[in-house]
Amino acid sequence: MSVGAQSLPDTPAHTVDAFHRGRFWLVQPQKSGHRAGMDAMMLAASVPASFTGTLADFGAGAGAAGLAVLSRCKNSTAILVERAPEMKAFCEATLAHPANQHLADRASILEADVTLAGRAREASGLRDNSVDFAIMNPPFNASEDRATPDDLKRQAHVMEIGLFEAWIRSAAAVVRPRGGLAVIARPESLRAILDAIDGRFGNAELLAVHPRADAAAIRIVVRAVRGARGKLSLRPPLVLHENGSDRFRADADAINNGFATLFGD
Amino acid sequence: MSVGAQSLPDTPAHTVDAFHRGRFWLVQPQKSGHRAGMDAMMLAASVPASFTGTLADFGAGAGAAGLAVLSRCKNSTAILVERAPEMKAFCEATLAHPANQHLADRASILEADVTLAGRAREASGLRDNSVDFAIMNPPFNASEDRATPDDLKRQAHVMEIGLFEAWIRSAAAVVRPRGGLAVIARPESLRAILDAIDGRFGNAELLAVHPRADAAAIRIVVRAVRGARGKLSLRPPLVLHENGSDRFRADADAINNGFATLFGD
Repeated sequence: MSVGAQSLPDTPAHTVDAFHRGRFWLVQPQKSGHRAGMDAMMLAASVPASFTGTLADFGAGAGAAGLAVLSRCKNSTAILVERAPEMKAFCEATLAHPANQHLADRASILEADVTLAGRAREASGLRDNSVDFAIMNPPFNASEDRATPDDLKRQAHVMEIGLFEAWIRSAAAVVRPRGGLAVIARPESLRAILDAIDGRFGNAELLAVHPRADAAAIRIVVRAVRGARGKLSLRPPLVLHENGSDRFRADADAINNGFATLFGD
Repeated sequence: MSVGAQSLPDTPAHTVDAFHRGRFWLVQPQKSGHRAGMDAMMLAASVPASFTGTLADFGAGAGAAGLAVLSRCKNSTAILVERAPEMKAFCEATLAHPANQHLADRASILEADVTLAGRAREASGLRDNSVDFAIMNPPFNASEDRATPDDLKRQAHVMEIGLFEAWIRSAAAVVRPRGGLAVIARPESLRAILDAIDGRFGNAELLAVHPRADAAAIRIVVRAVRGARGKLSLRPPLVLHENGSDRFRADADAINNGFATLFGD
């Protein structure tokens, strides 16, 4: 990623960053809010290469994960769902950016709170059985991050009881039967995710992301199928760097740049 | 493992198998019941090399995992807890075997049902706060295995609602504060284990065992500390074989033979 494309006069302090080696660009806040990176790319890479249909990106931010799926899956469309007006504005700027013209007509933005339930959720535009795949990178449940003075970041990182339950409950409503779900999170959230998918999604696959082969995982990705009944499986992990190096390993680099998928399908 | 030591005239059809390259031997049923192997060795290898004190082996069978800890941790003692009288008899034969004379005085057998609770559990000999570490390889919760005609195997593999809850509840009672727990299970049991340890054990570490680097995990080991509050971490996995080979990798072979620990401590 690098700052390259021209800045936008009507958008608050921002950067324009290349993803997928310049195949799309992200307009995102310069210093505040969630800046997208490897997490969004790994989440997007959990969608199979053969995916067609409609994707929902819950908590889309500036649009990184959703656009990464559109960039790789040419016959897909994406609904970028974002609650925070500040981030939605960056998402709009991203879609309006000339460098993303080839993707923008397959993307739409929905300002909605994915933790809503029942009629309120339907009324917000999150319709039952309306999408084929949902991806989500819920705000990390990490109270220690609240020390930051950055308001947007604090909002995104706030500790919420039942966060995964609420997000995954909505995904179970919005995703059609046999549609997909993928969640990226910290390892400590594994139990909350497994509890939330129980009875809603099956055939779950857990993939751990380790910074190095000898280090504990820093992220987990859980993928599952709406209404399926198969048991949990643990996939071989993704290792980002060789021991003693900060360079990405080839497979991690390919995933980061949209040339490979996380689950190999 | 190989059949080597002499057979025992008073014991039902059995084999006597070497573990840890002949540093101890197991008398176990020839054709029925659970025959011990790599699972028991990996479970035993989750106990740190520095371990001293009293270990409880829940569902000890013929004693494989408990003896593997005694073989490696010279200043430890073990209580081998087994419910099934048939398997307890093999466990007794194991301890009585001349080849295990150097370990037998540090082991005792307790015929008890680890799923008991409260006073019944205390009355069975499973006393509160009486051990420093509990290890367990609960009978796999796999209904498809019930098709086997083998009675002992069926008993061990029976599907039980709340199996992990009952076993881990007892471990939480029997293990002293800051004592250890290690569980080996199939990946599909991960949620049940995480739910059962919640509020009882913390600092949980999950380690997946993959047959080959590119294959899904076949076992998980979860280790945790009684009364600790730390978050779940995912350790680098153990890979048993090189791709395209049936030989054990060096690290898996060392763990299987008592020369290395699973968590490196």
